[in-house]
Amino acid sequence: MSVTAAAGFRAAGVAAGLKSTGALDVALVVNDGPLSAAAGVFTSNRAKANPVLWSEQALAGGSARAVVLNSGGANCFTGSFGFQTTHLTAERVAARLGIGAIDVQVCSTGLIGVGDERFRQGVLAGVDAAADALGAPGADGSDEAAGLRAAQAIMTTDSVPKQAVATGSGYTVGGMAKGAGMLAPGLATMLVVLTTDAVAEPDALDRALRAATRTTFDRLDSDGCMSTNDTVLLLASGASGAAADEAELTAVVTAVCDDLAQQLQADAEGASHDITIEVRSAASEDDAVVVARSVARSNLFKAAIFGNDPNWGRVLAAIGTTDAAFDPYAVDVSFNGVRVCHAGEPDRPREEVDLTPRATHIVIDLFAGGSTASIRTNDLTHDYVHENSAYAS
Amino acid sequence: MSVTAAAGFRAAGVAAGLKSTGALDVALVVNDGPLSAAAGVFTSNRAKANPVLWSEQALAGGSARAVVLNSGGANCFTGSFGFQTTHLTAERVAARLGIGAIDVQVCSTGLIGVGDERFRQGVLAGVDAAADALGAPGADGSDEAAGLRAAQAIMTTDSVPKQAVATGSGYTVGGMAKGAGMLAPGLATMLVVLTTDAVAEPDALDRALRAATRTTFDRLDSDGCMSTNDTVLLLASGASGAAADEAELTAVVTAVCDDLAQQLQADAEGASHDITIEVRSAASEDDAVVVARSVARSNLFKAAIFGNDPNWGRVLAAIGTTDAAFDPYAVDVSFNGVRVCHAGEPDRPREEVDLTPRATHIVIDLFAGGSTASIRTNDLTHDYVHENSAYAS
Repeated sequence: MSVTAAAGFRAAGVAAGLKSTGALDVALVVNDGPLSAAAGVFTSNRAKANPVLWSEQALAGGSARAVVLNSGGANCFTGSFGFQTTHLTAERVAARLGIGAIDVQVCSTGLIGVGDERFRQGVLAGVDAAADALGAPGADGSDEAAGLRAAQAIMTTDSVPKQAVATGSGYTVGGMAKGAGMLAPGLATMLVVLTTDAVAEPDALDRALRAATRTTFDRLDSDGCMSTNDTVLLLASGASGAAADEAELTAVVTAVCDDLAQQLQADAEGASHDITIEVRSAASEDDAVVVARSVARSNLFKAAIFGNDPNWGRVLAAIGTTDAAFDPYAVDVSFNGVRVCHAGEPDRPREEVDLTPRATHIVIDLFAGGSTASIRTNDLTHDYVHENSAYAS
Repeated sequence: MSVTAAAGFRAAGVAAGLKSTGALDVALVVNDGPLSAAAGVFTSNRAKANPVLWSEQALAGGSARAVVLNSGGANCFTGSFGFQTTHLTAERVAARLGIGAIDVQVCSTGLIGVGDERFRQGVLAGVDAAADALGAPGADGSDEAAGLRAAQAIMTTDSVPKQAVATGSGYTVGGMAKGAGMLAPGLATMLVVLTTDAVAEPDALDRALRAATRTTFDRLDSDGCMSTNDTVLLLASGASGAAADEAELTAVVTAVCDDLAQQLQADAEGASHDITIEVRSAASEDDAVVVARSVARSNLFKAAIFGNDPNWGRVLAAIGTTDAAFDPYAVDVSFNGVRVCHAGEPDRPREEVDLTPRATHIVIDLFAGGSTASIRTNDLTHDYVHENSAYAS
């Protein structure tokens, strides 16, 4: 189940001709209330797409009643014409739903630089078709099939739609995500919409969302490339009538984000391994993240994993470029449970390591403190190169 | 011509069985004086190989009379046994040449974690064979063929030896280099030995070398992976009798370093494009370097160039992750002379860009000041993935 799992939400996914394949490409998620509380986290890339520029401002009041999302064009670096397209899109949604444009969040994904008149007309036609498909509140658009169509409409190079759901005390949190490349949220072209029927204030939603993304999407670094369009939204309808305890809400939102982050990693462009780099005994959580991310961004390490090669020298070379607190010559490194490096010297023979499973677990022990963190990444493969060189995306 | 181009130097390259192919794998460069002035720049990776740990200390006095180099093993993360191997190697060279061990620089390249008894005995036997091959001062080892054999003996995945020479007022600067992967000197397994017959003090050599490497090797970022063994050495024999003007010496050393950096880029593992990323009108030289390096490290950009795709969106997404001073929406981007992005919007059609030549020139105009800098990088290709996954290196 997806964005329609929580009570008070309707969704639609339609084909508006933005994708040359004729696949679904415009999604609409509507919060029927009674609450319209919302929070969002956006890309920290300074090059922000027009929909991000709009949505970040529109969400300042902590309220959103609808999210419109398109694939088939990122509407980034498309100038004032592109920004006007985003605004017109919000206004069209508002007019169809009888709400204010300021209550409409807009998300786009696809090729940077795409946002011409044809794109604009396609998106606007998509909004109309999606609004038609929603049906009346509580009707058509609130079923599981509608949520699935919305999740399909935001796919680009994704091979499968990504959805997740978790439950708290009397309420539900559901969500959908897209993302397969340019996948290094700091926040990535990752789009995520989360919905809940919990009763919660915008400030509590904001805190819960930031806490959840910090340890999930922010620790997914598939290819080191941060997108211009990354957006994660959390909308609360309050339709369950259940007031959410903030700690529990944070845990439930984190569970949904973690599930979606894992689905994003599993569908990363061209990848043959899902790698978890776990750094233990770091002096601080920040140090653990810095060390894990440095390994995650080493093309030599990533290519070695593709070749099923437990190349711990490339791990140590990568961590040596960081300024985290540790002695590189005191470090242990394990690949899938086999410690191949102990105290900066060769340990178990590499032949003992089996790197054929897709799930790969690297443990780096720094012996510098009590903190731990993990980064999820993928290997560097021929398919990755092919998908990102054979055609523009 | 190579390390033997300058008067006062002899060299040798021999096969000591470190490489399974039986190719040349131990090189020796000897400075017969009268001066023994020397300067060096070493990897800034905190994970430093044993030869780097030794050489950095041994060079503290600004003097070196010989450099011994081996391929077939990096002697990195090999513990105290590995360090003793380096020390024994220096002592063996010293004994054969009748000099002090402190005057011997040691460089190693190859797989990290390789440095066992077999390796040690191989290197020591190589030293003996190389010393035998040198001949008397002014004899066999000072010819061009000997310099070439030394340059061949330090190759790993390199496909060609790299040598360069330039002349100043009455003196010569020559050099050799190796490096094809883990190539992002900050200072990669890059090894460079430069020789000159100029009369110059160690301090002047140090300043000239640091100025030269700052704008040449430090701006080569083929694959973003900094090595544990990078070393650049400059030895002066004074045998020309010509006292070097420091500004001219810096320019001549820079010319040799620039030539070698270009040869390293041209031979980068699996690359099909040599990319120069030139950043113009930056607020500072540092900003220009940060912006150019961010693009050079984007796998999406590098894969696009492999696909002959002038994907300026990936350029802008990469520069948007930096904190350099500029407005991402004011930027111009050109590929091989065609401005495809003007002021953050699409400009000339992509079809006008020809990316089939190996030499690729990207110009990014920031309109934020008067500074300029370039980074040399390579594309991300199937051959790169193959070379770095099919076997350990």
